[in-house]
Order: sequence, then C-alpha cells, then structure tokens
Amino acid sequence: MSKKVAVILSGCGVYDGAEIHESVLTLLRLDQRGAQVQCFAPNIAQLQVVDHLTGDEVSETRNVLVESARIARGQIKDLREAKAEAFDALIVPGGFGAAKNLCDFAVSGANMSVQPDVLALAQAFAAAEKPIGLMCIAPSMAAKIFGEGVTCTIGKDADTAAALTQMGARHEECEVDNIVVDPEHKLVTTPAYMLAQSIAEAAAGINKLVDQVLEMA
Amino acid sequence: MSKKVAVILSGCGVYDGAEIHESVLTLLRLDQRGAQVQCFAPNIAQLQVVDHLTGDEVSETRNVLVESARIARGQIKDLREAKAEAFDALIVPGGFGAAKNLCDFAVSGANMSVQPDVLALAQAFAAAEKPIGLMCIAPSMAAKIFGEGVTCTIGKDADTAAALTQMGARHEECEVDNIVVDPEHKLVTTPAYMLAQSIAEAAAGINKLVDQVLEMA
Repeated sequence: MSKKVAVILSGCGVYDGAEIHESVLTLLRLDQRGAQVQCFAPNIAQLQVVDHLTGDEVSETRNVLVESARIARGQIKDLREAKAEAFDALIVPGGFGAAKNLCDFAVSGANMSVQPDVLALAQAFAAAEKPIGLMCIAPSMAAKIFGEGVTCTIGKDADTAAALTQMGARHEECEVDNIVVDPEHKLVTTPAYMLAQSIAEAAAGINKLVDQVLEMA
Repeated sequence: MSKKVAVILSGCGVYDGAEIHESVLTLLRLDQRGAQVQCFAPNIAQLQVVDHLTGDEVSETRNVLVESARIARGQIKDLREAKAEAFDALIVPGGFGAAKNLCDFAVSGANMSVQPDVLALAQAFAAAEKPIGLMCIAPSMAAKIFGEGVTCTIGKDADTAAALTQMGARHEECEVDNIVVDPEHKLVTTPAYMLAQSIAEAAAGINKLVDQVLEMA
C-alpha cells in the first residue's frame, strides 16, 4: 500500500516563500519511494514579496497558494481542504515562507504564533499519531504543534535554537546530512538549508527525513 | 578537474517560466557529479504571467532574471555576463519560459526566433564545440542554434516534432527516461515534462542528460 503524504508549501522562493530546492527534493524522494503526494498551501497573502536578485523587499502582493502552485505544477489545494484522516503523514519544507507565512517566527521569534489553519492541521496529524516531518526553519513551529518537551533540530544556529528552547522545545544539534527523530511525538526534523552549502548536501538530509517519515507512517 | 557548467533559466514556474522541477533536478545532478554551476537568465520582461493555480494569464509584469533568481537562491547573473570561454558546457531546462522568454516558439511555432543574447551565447558554445543540453521544449531552439540537420527530441508529440522538422532539425522519438545524443553537434536532449507523468520520471531522463553532457565536456 503506498503511503499518502500531505506537503504544505508556503510560497515559491527561499526569501519570501517555500525554499524551492527543499520542496522539489521532498517531492522527488516521495515519488521515488512510491508515496502518493498532495500539496497544500494557505490561501492568504504573503507577508512580504522579496526580489531574489537583490534581496530587497518590493511593494507587491502575492498569494501563498497561487505562488506555491508554481512548485506543484498547479496540482495543489487550499490548506483548508486538507484532512488529517485522508493522509498517513505530513511534511513541511522550509524557506522563509515557513517562518513568515505559516507562522510569524521570522518577525516575532519566541513570541510567535502559527497560522490557525496550519496549526489545526498539524495538530490533527499529531493527535492521530501520524508522523510529521519539518525541515530547515519549519521546526520553529514544533513547540506550538506538540507542546513542551518535543525534540527537534534547526541545525546549529545558537540564537535560533535558544528561541526554540524558550518556547519549550528540546533542541538537538544536527549535521546537514542527518535527522533528529522524536519517536514519542513521531516528529522528524533536518537542518536542510539552515546548514546546507549545496543542493546535494540538502538532499542528503531531506532524503533521510522523507524515508524516516514514511517508515513511521 | 571539476567541469564548469552554465545553466540558463527562463523564469520560475512551468506555465510562464522555467519548469521548476527540471531546473532543480538539473542543479542537483550537476552538484552530485561535482560540477561547478553558474545560473544565468535574460534580464527581460516575461512574455506572460500565469496564475499557476487557475492556469489563467494575469495582468502583471515580472522580470525573467528576477524570477529565475528564486530557483537559484539569488546566485544568478544577467545572461549578458555569460561567456562561453568561461564554461565547459551549457544546459537549458524547459518549461513554457523556454518557449516564451528564451524564444517565441510558443507563439510563432516554426516561424520562431531565439532571443538574441540567448542565441549568441548558445552559438558561442556550439562554435567552441562545447556540449549543450536542452530539455523538454528547449530543443525547439536547436535548429536556430545549430542549423539544419541537427538531431534532437521533444519526446513524441507529433505536431511539435513536425514544427522542429520544418525548421530543419531531425527529430527522433524518445522515451521519458532516455536521451537523444547528436555527437557531431554535441547536443543532448531529453523529453522531461513533455512526457513525464511524475517527478521521478523526469529525473531519470534529466540525470542521463546531465551525465552525458559532462561526459562530452
């Protein structure tokens, strides 16, 4: 039986949306492992639009679902249509979109809150004891989803790790090609581009994350 | 000695830009094979902006170089800065951007012309006998780059193949997981999402294309 996996995207581009490489590498590994995938994104405005050539914010409005559809080749649904009971697992790639559109960690740090529909969906997976994979900066949502004591990684950045700890998560340092598994919460995390110096490095950890999530599903 | 490869992107999204999966799979394989990569894109307005959720054209202007920077994580240069002598090979992923922004095949069919800077760069690689890889719909540019008699594939679509033949190319049908090699012109082509039903299928042919291009470089 092939596993059904929901993937939440947060736009299209590392500085204001889902990290494109992480998203595509996730879709590639899931497909290579025979999983059935459905992408979702919240139907909300992006917090920002960033010119990825200059790194500057521009005065433009883009929609998270519409831009995420670029990565999904149009095969994507409004996150509000997602039901945990229809899937075996949930994976969230990183990029600033995870910390700007799915939650507001990029702005509020440890005082962050998770976008309500994203939180409700992730908590439904957790309540059903279905595994969740969070990569890059997406583990900033772990404590809000699972509560205090959940174990995760964002790699090695001390300030980011401290903010996660302040929210109640237990942070473990992790190399780019590895994963941190919290078996009790069925949470799998990997640093991806929090540490990766190249796309092949990111792929090494992401492949392990996808494999472990499918293993637990 | 690691090979230096120039990659031309044409925006960010299958319907109005570079096909994101094809672009990322190309970058992944090149990195896994130890190649040094530099992405380029023309600093011009996109022909269209398409809402990838609905498939509808929207009245918006986006720049090919700025949007391509999303796929390249900001590590991209204006195509006019590219010099064939600085690289060992050239690869162009597909997506409608290849047929709307790099040339106008999507609009003009066999009466198409290639964007002047793109044409000059590709012809400089050809003149230097450095290999070129074109995937998906990008081989629509082959006859304009190499002249009559060049052999290539866009998969199996009869109308598209007829247009290429009309321009002077020799078209060979090809499965999604395979490549067509023209050893005389050092041109490698693969159907990618002209045929692929999934990202893993696209990866199979793209990996072979990248490997063959590096082999000939």
